[in-house]
Amino acid sequence: MPDVQARGVENAFKLTKVGVTGVTKPVSVKRPGRAVTLTATFDVFVDLPAHQRGSHLSRNLEAIGEVVDDSVRDPVPGLEDLAATIARSLLDRHAYATRSHVRVTADYFLEKTTPMGRRSLERYGLVAEADGDRGGSPEVRRRIGVRVVGMTACPCAMETIREETGETGPLPTITHNQRNITTLVLEEPEGHGVEADDLVAIVESSMSAPTFEILKRPDEGRLVRLAHENPRFVEDVVREVLSRLVKTYARLPDGVSVSVRSESEESIHKHNAVAERVTTLGELRA
Amino acid sequence: MPDVQARGVENAFKLTKVGVTGVTKPVSVKRPGRAVTLTATFDVFVDLPAHQRGSHLSRNLEAIGEVVDDSVRDPVPGLEDLAATIARSLLDRHAYATRSHVRVTADYFLEKTTPMGRRSLERYGLVAEADGDRGGSPEVRRRIGVRVVGMTACPCAMETIREETGETGPLPTITHNQRNITTLVLEEPEGHGVEADDLVAIVESSMSAPTFEILKRPDEGRLVRLAHENPRFVEDVVREVLSRLVKTYARLPDGVSVSVRSESEESIHKHNAVAERVTTLGELRA
Amino acid sequence: MPDVQARGVENAFKLTKVGVTGVTKPVSVKRPGRAVTLTATFDVFVDLPAHQRGSHLSRNLEAIGEVVDDSVRDPVPGLEDLAATIARSLLDRHAYATRSHVRVTADYFLEKTTPMGRRSLERYGLVAEADGDRGGSPEVRRRIGVRVVGMTACPCAMETIREETGETGPLPTITHNQRNITTLVLEEPEGHGVEADDLVAIVESSMSAPTFEILKRPDEGRLVRLAHENPRFVEDVVREVLSRLVKTYARLPDGVSVSVRSESEESIHKHNAVAERVTTLGELRA
Amino acid sequence: MPDVQARGVENAFKLTKVGVTGVTKPVSVKRPGRAVTLTATFDVFVDLPAHQRGSHLSRNLEAIGEVVDDSVRDPVPGLEDLAATIARSLLDRHAYATRSHVRVTADYFLEKTTPMGRRSLERYGLVAEADGDRGGSPEVRRRIGVRVVGMTACPCAMETIREETGETGPLPTITHNQRNITTLVLEEPEGHGVEADDLVAIVESSMSAPTFEILKRPDEGRLVRLAHENPRFVEDVVREVLSRLVKTYARLPDGVSVSVRSESEESIHKHNAVAERVTTLGELRA
Repeated sequence: MPDVQARGVENAFKLTKVGVTGVTKPVSVKRPGRAVTLTATFDVFVDLPAHQRGSHLSRNLEAIGEVVDDSVRDPVPGLEDLAATIARSLLDRHAYATRSHVRVTADYFLEKTTPMGRRSLERYGLVAEADGDRGGSPEVRRRIGVRVVGMTACPCAMETIREETGETGPLPTITHNQRNITTLVLEEPEGHGVEADDLVAIVESSMSAPTFEILKRPDEGRLVRLAHENPRFVEDVVREVLSRLVKTYARLPDGVSVSVRSESEESIHKHNAVAERVTTLGELRA
Repeated sequence: MPDVQARGVENAFKLTKVGVTGVTKPVSVKRPGRAVTLTATFDVFVDLPAHQRGSHLSRNLEAIGEVVDDSVRDPVPGLEDLAATIARSLLDRHAYATRSHVRVTADYFLEKTTPMGRRSLERYGLVAEADGDRGGSPEVRRRIGVRVVGMTACPCAMETIREETGETGPLPTITHNQRNITTLVLEEPEGHGVEADDLVAIVESSMSAPTFEILKRPDEGRLVRLAHENPRFVEDVVREVLSRLVKTYARLPDGVSVSVRSESEESIHKHNAVAERVTTLGELRA
Repeated sequence: MPDVQARGVENAFKLTKVGVTGVTKPVSVKRPGRAVTLTATFDVFVDLPAHQRGSHLSRNLEAIGEVVDDSVRDPVPGLEDLAATIARSLLDRHAYATRSHVRVTADYFLEKTTPMGRRSLERYGLVAEADGDRGGSPEVRRRIGVRVVGMTACPCAMETIREETGETGPLPTITHNQRNITTLVLEEPEGHGVEADDLVAIVESSMSAPTFEILKRPDEGRLVRLAHENPRFVEDVVREVLSRLVKTYARLPDGVSVSVRSESEESIHKHNAVAERVTTLGELRA
Repeated sequence: MPDVQARGVENAFKLTKVGVTGVTKPVSVKRPGRAVTLTATFDVFVDLPAHQRGSHLSRNLEAIGEVVDDSVRDPVPGLEDLAATIARSLLDRHAYATRSHVRVTADYFLEKTTPMGRRSLERYGLVAEADGDRGGSPEVRRRIGVRVVGMTACPCAMETIREETGETGPLPTITHNQRNITTLVLEEPEGHGVEADDLVAIVESSMSAPTFEILKRPDEGRLVRLAHENPRFVEDVVREVLSRLVKTYARLPDGVSVSVRSESEESIHKHNAVAERVTTLGELRA
């Protein structure tokens, strides 16, 4: 059977990426002392040279299927390792490609403790990425990231009201607060391990307060006070995350890429507020 | 050309509704002293008897297209009138149908004034529905609704903190507050007019505070105080809307259907809180 | 601490439902010979009498948390059993409520075999619902449903082209085909078991063809032929599902509720086509 | 009142971008012989130096509000001009910023003619972007883009079936076809005009066939034949767009950025297929 994809092309332009999006599979991931099953969604791509008409997309699905099947027998250490394995496999399966890109997202659960000591299973998002570069050094770069929902209380409205009223009471002043979604993605260089749970802890402690799925009244009161004692703009959240990253990952090299984005679903506006920094550890240390 | 849709069917079950969703068109609507263009999305359906294989879906598009074209020349009084005209047209075009259903949604803008007197163009959602019933009396029932984004401040956390601290200061006590989305849909019987702008006003004044797209600091302070002086559960918002409805629409008959739903995107939780009432004006008056 | 929620209310209207949406947790479900972990999303509600200001929303989270925790130790037979347990627990925890409603959705995976015999892990959606009715008989009604992505090929365009060209070849005639999403929800009465996998099989075989995540060329050709040999309107898909349901579930009582909805993301239109039937097994048997 | 945003910061990291997302407003845009009202959604950002605590977000809303208000009196030539004006205004209003970024999206409607000559109002998406660079040359770069929904028919399955059956009939062979969404964004340098309608025409003619909201049977048959006579991979669609761009915009300079992305919602898979090229006109001409 002739290879339709391998035929010469009329408009011989190379393509930056060709692949599939929205492939969802259960994967098994090792956690301290256990294995967890995550429902992971994959987007995978390779580049395409000018002379090749089409990319063999079924090979992408084979690459994903193989690592997913393997994870059932032997849980992967992390989603970023899974992404890296697929990125490598894509270069093997697409001989014409020089680059590959893999992105995996999944919901992820951690048991947390409320201020009053109650246990609550909380939802977080995981994001893992890997970029393959044939003949590059390293051949595959991988990143691991987390998406955390928390709370921000606005420092500006709080100060406005304090000034207007001259309030000097023992309690923090009222302000608007809201749901905040902050994402942190960190490159994980060869030979270095980065724990997603540590990234969750960094982000969660950088907001005005964490959120919990179950709160009885004393816990609710504590959280509201905590948030008002730590009023934060989205800008503050991003900088706090950057500061904690620099301290926590002193052992990682300068070239490591970092991306932090914080979005507040403003309670006094119909729109959202966003702050973002895309950089390297080296730039942050300068 | 034989009519494939009209053929006898193997599995002769009638169908509750058959139609198209996600048809988007610009429509022209009359407002006091002007006409506005809205980008409206239509879902339209008819029922199908057991003996008819398929519904002629292109007739649904003709029904929509005709009223949209007409609105360019002669702006419609309201989206619910447009929905009613389409519901009637669907019964005309589908001789085999006994019921029709039309739902139209659109973004809608009103100029509002902030507490400090600044003008701000605010976004709301419109929802119009019409149900056709061949031979019914009336043949078409229509409903008009609004979707409003505002703010709720939690009464419970406020009281918890007040009790724990014994606070008795002049300012309201801190609490969590968040983005709230409340929808109100009201039947609009023949011969009675219901203004969407009035529904917006009812919903917006039933929340802890309205939201605005643009707020300088004194306005922001005022809104935050307003929200904390009117702490509301989602339950309170729904009941406040119901109470205002009963007072405002004393002239409407008992049979008029009412639906109110309020959802708070909780700032201290990762989930949302929801309250809803589906009823009639008569039941509310009892 | 006074119970803010239990206070008398200014606008004493009862509420149809009050609760929380978007609570996501991992749950463990028994499958033949194994247990699978699903990432499930819960919406849970109770009604609220006129004299009660607020519903104690944290009790909803306790009800969810308890069954989720229990499932880790003892996997539940199905999501609908989990929903029913929560619906019962909600009535226990909210003494003022007379009704409860629970909806759970999750992605779910089954190993399927392509026409050429290749194994492929395919994604489906599960939907489980339970309605509690204090003092009712039964006190809790539960439903189990599936969401299946497949393919429909249009019978009408195929016939149009055949007529225009007088084509009488051995191969089916060209037509437009597209991604179709069909949902089937069936009540599962006390003492009767309904297997989600059977519902998946019923829906999947009612479309023009199933879809697979991985297809090499011979499989792709087979599927395309299969779809063109079974051209189906959305109306046909719904009726085919209804017909198979009646045959498969002869043992279930007449009162059992049935809901089937099929949506084709039309390839020749920008909108979707939808057909739906909401009924009971008794009506279908008449 | 002290400027909270202007205060010194604890973690003095600069931020890549700070701003607001999801601001929706009606804007008036000039079209040949008329003005149309679009419901536009804005995301706007500036960068933030290390020494400035917060960005004054209300200034972003003032920048948007001003150009939107002006457009009512004097419709803008295009969304990209609106974006450029806002990008310039952001640099004026945020003295500490060196960069600004604006993204505007809107639904947009064009009257098209079906193969059989029927008029149909079709929906497209507009995307306009502008990047401000204080002291840069030019100070603001703007891009205009379109999002088009059309149809692709798979060349590979068609050939597989033709080979297996030895079919040599006059009609094209059956294959799978599906909804395709292709986006083209082109930089529009100072002194050069790019018409969004031309971009729509380029993309629409690069797919296997266009789609229409209303099709009677002869039109439906024609479109299905057209699609099967032009089977296209997503790779083919992107290259066809690139080829037409190079021919159509010979007058534009080499540095002009180009981005094309085509996504097919596969009818035989549950996932999507995607191809993309990000480049410059100069690279395409090489």
